[in-house]
Amino acid sequence: MMTLNTLSIEPLDQEAGAKTREYVNTLTKPVGSLGRLEELAIELSMMTGDPFPKVTPPGVLIFAADHGIVEEGVSAYPQAVTAQMVLNFLAGGAAISVFSRQIGALLEIIDMGVATDLKANGLVNRKMKFGTANFLKQDAMTREEAIHCLDAGMKSAEEIINKGAKLVIIGEMGIGNTTSSSAILAALTDLDLDSLVGKGTGISNEALNLKKQVILEALIARKVNAKDPLDVLAKVGGFEIGAMAGAILGAAAKRIPVLADGLISTVAALLAFKIHPTAADYLIVGHQSVEPGHIHAIQELEKRPLLNLDLRLGEGSGAAVAFPIVEAAVRMLSEMATFSSANVSEKL
Amino acid sequence: MMTLNTLSIEPLDQEAGAKTREYVNTLTKPVGSLGRLEELAIELSMMTGDPFPKVTPPGVLIFAADHGIVEEGVSAYPQAVTAQMVLNFLAGGAAISVFSRQIGALLEIIDMGVATDLKANGLVNRKMKFGTANFLKQDAMTREEAIHCLDAGMKSAEEIINKGAKLVIIGEMGIGNTTSSSAILAALTDLDLDSLVGKGTGISNEALNLKKQVILEALIARKVNAKDPLDVLAKVGGFEIGAMAGAILGAAAKRIPVLADGLISTVAALLAFKIHPTAADYLIVGHQSVEPGHIHAIQELEKRPLLNLDLRLGEGSGAAVAFPIVEAAVRMLSEMATFSSANVSEKL
Repeated sequence: MMTLNTLSIEPLDQEAGAKTREYVNTLTKPVGSLGRLEELAIELSMMTGDPFPKVTPPGVLIFAADHGIVEEGVSAYPQAVTAQMVLNFLAGGAAISVFSRQIGALLEIIDMGVATDLKANGLVNRKMKFGTANFLKQDAMTREEAIHCLDAGMKSAEEIINKGAKLVIIGEMGIGNTTSSSAILAALTDLDLDSLVGKGTGISNEALNLKKQVILEALIARKVNAKDPLDVLAKVGGFEIGAMAGAILGAAAKRIPVLADGLISTVAALLAFKIHPTAADYLIVGHQSVEPGHIHAIQELEKRPLLNLDLRLGEGSGAAVAFPIVEAAVRMLSEMATFSSANVSEKL
Repeated sequence: MMTLNTLSIEPLDQEAGAKTREYVNTLTKPVGSLGRLEELAIELSMMTGDPFPKVTPPGVLIFAADHGIVEEGVSAYPQAVTAQMVLNFLAGGAAISVFSRQIGALLEIIDMGVATDLKANGLVNRKMKFGTANFLKQDAMTREEAIHCLDAGMKSAEEIINKGAKLVIIGEMGIGNTTSSSAILAALTDLDLDSLVGKGTGISNEALNLKKQVILEALIARKVNAKDPLDVLAKVGGFEIGAMAGAILGAAAKRIPVLADGLISTVAALLAFKIHPTAADYLIVGHQSVEPGHIHAIQELEKRPLLNLDLRLGEGSGAAVAFPIVEAAVRMLSEMATFSSANVSEKL
């Protein structure tokens, strides 16, 4: 089994990428006319080392956990919603359930620390605790727990890949987790909180000001070491966020492309990048969310999102909606005719 | 059978839209958090008059024709490519063939005026002539022919809808047709040619200047009446462009949503709009193409494209890649649980 200690991520396969790039130019379309689909095909080739990469079926990993920080009034919804939504995922009624069916995905829901004793068919139990501590008052978790989360996420990635997933979508559920993610992002980037912190699931302007204040005070009180991603995760993070970072590291170690979703998922990717920079080479960002911190996290990773549809739901939903674009890139490669096979004349 | 003379398009169903809007807010997600998917669901409801609209299977209509204007050296590819690509569509090797399979679409290829005698299994023959006349020297077609094209497109829309298509994607093939589309767009909008005319399939800077010059001279020589869309179509249009406009009118008359592709498809929508303004209410723009005129055509129709992936292929390919987003909006409506059905707590 992979752990943080034994983690090894190979660089992109430039040779496979060069083969794909050359092949794309023989397909029956003007050179470059499929724009980002062509770029995606080449990136997927470099990630997988296969000039004709596969991405189906995708695997969706949803990590769920609760956050002690909700005591401070930073969320629009009661904490009970985390557990209720986990049951909704399992029953097939949530947005990510619907979009996972649409894209034919393998779907795994992992309880990393929901504040309710959940025993439900199909739920993977990796519960650390019944929610993190309130990080305004104490560290969200210990450093050891942070490492456990990463290892648990790696294990989940490994398992879904062993079940056949050719691409991993990273999603989450956790009332309060935009507060934790914004704190992590602020710690890792030193950007101004006003440009990072948003309304999450839809808090009032008053609650937004409180949320910023809570994050600001917590970052000072916790004495976060911005140079140490594990310290940041332990002090202001969440169990599901650590697991998401671990899943990204685990997929990258297996040369499996990762499709990130919104703020929380992309902040987890930023943590993964700070732990092992090569991990980001295996990352595609599915969409740009309305949550203001998201674009900053995307830019830190030097990525360009595929979609911009004013989404702000999380769960991996935006990544699932973006997946057919990735599939189209792969089908272009494997199914289109070449100029010579189809007897089509080339450019004058 | 529908014709331009008997055409009738109903206004959007505001009542169905209001029902959908209300229902969307009961689904298990923060209000508004699925952004444009929610807007799309409401628009589709108003178009179809069904609060739970359907969009599968989609029908892809590809209209093909040749253009006399290619004599002037405005295209990067030889005219023979139009016919060769039609055969590639039928053989399943073109981008639109591949993406149509991905989205489970009905696919129809219609010869509206290819400059080759094509007899192939599965090809619908509505050939007007072996290509339009060179519109630098004479009108591309007669006014009567323009009306015939519109009627042929309406017939194609009607037929694919009768076969079960719940949404129509409008695509095309025709070497030289960005020149014709740019001329139509310039005539209908009075915008500056420098901001409209692009490199199409990839001409040189020199050829781009020639293309602008040809369009400018032709618009003057043809004495186009910008107030009369049929005059514009006849004088500088193309057989496939007229048919596309007709297909949009025909689908709108049947309350079937239309998904437009790139420049040519959207210019056809603009013609349809000028003929019958209500037609535009049934239109969704799939993506924003690299071709500079496209965004202007989109803005004239007051639309917002779903994707921006640097595509410039045509064939309906970008619309097909955008289709899963439309499908996701519909699945959200029909498959997601409500707060009460899933026992999820609402906002505090």
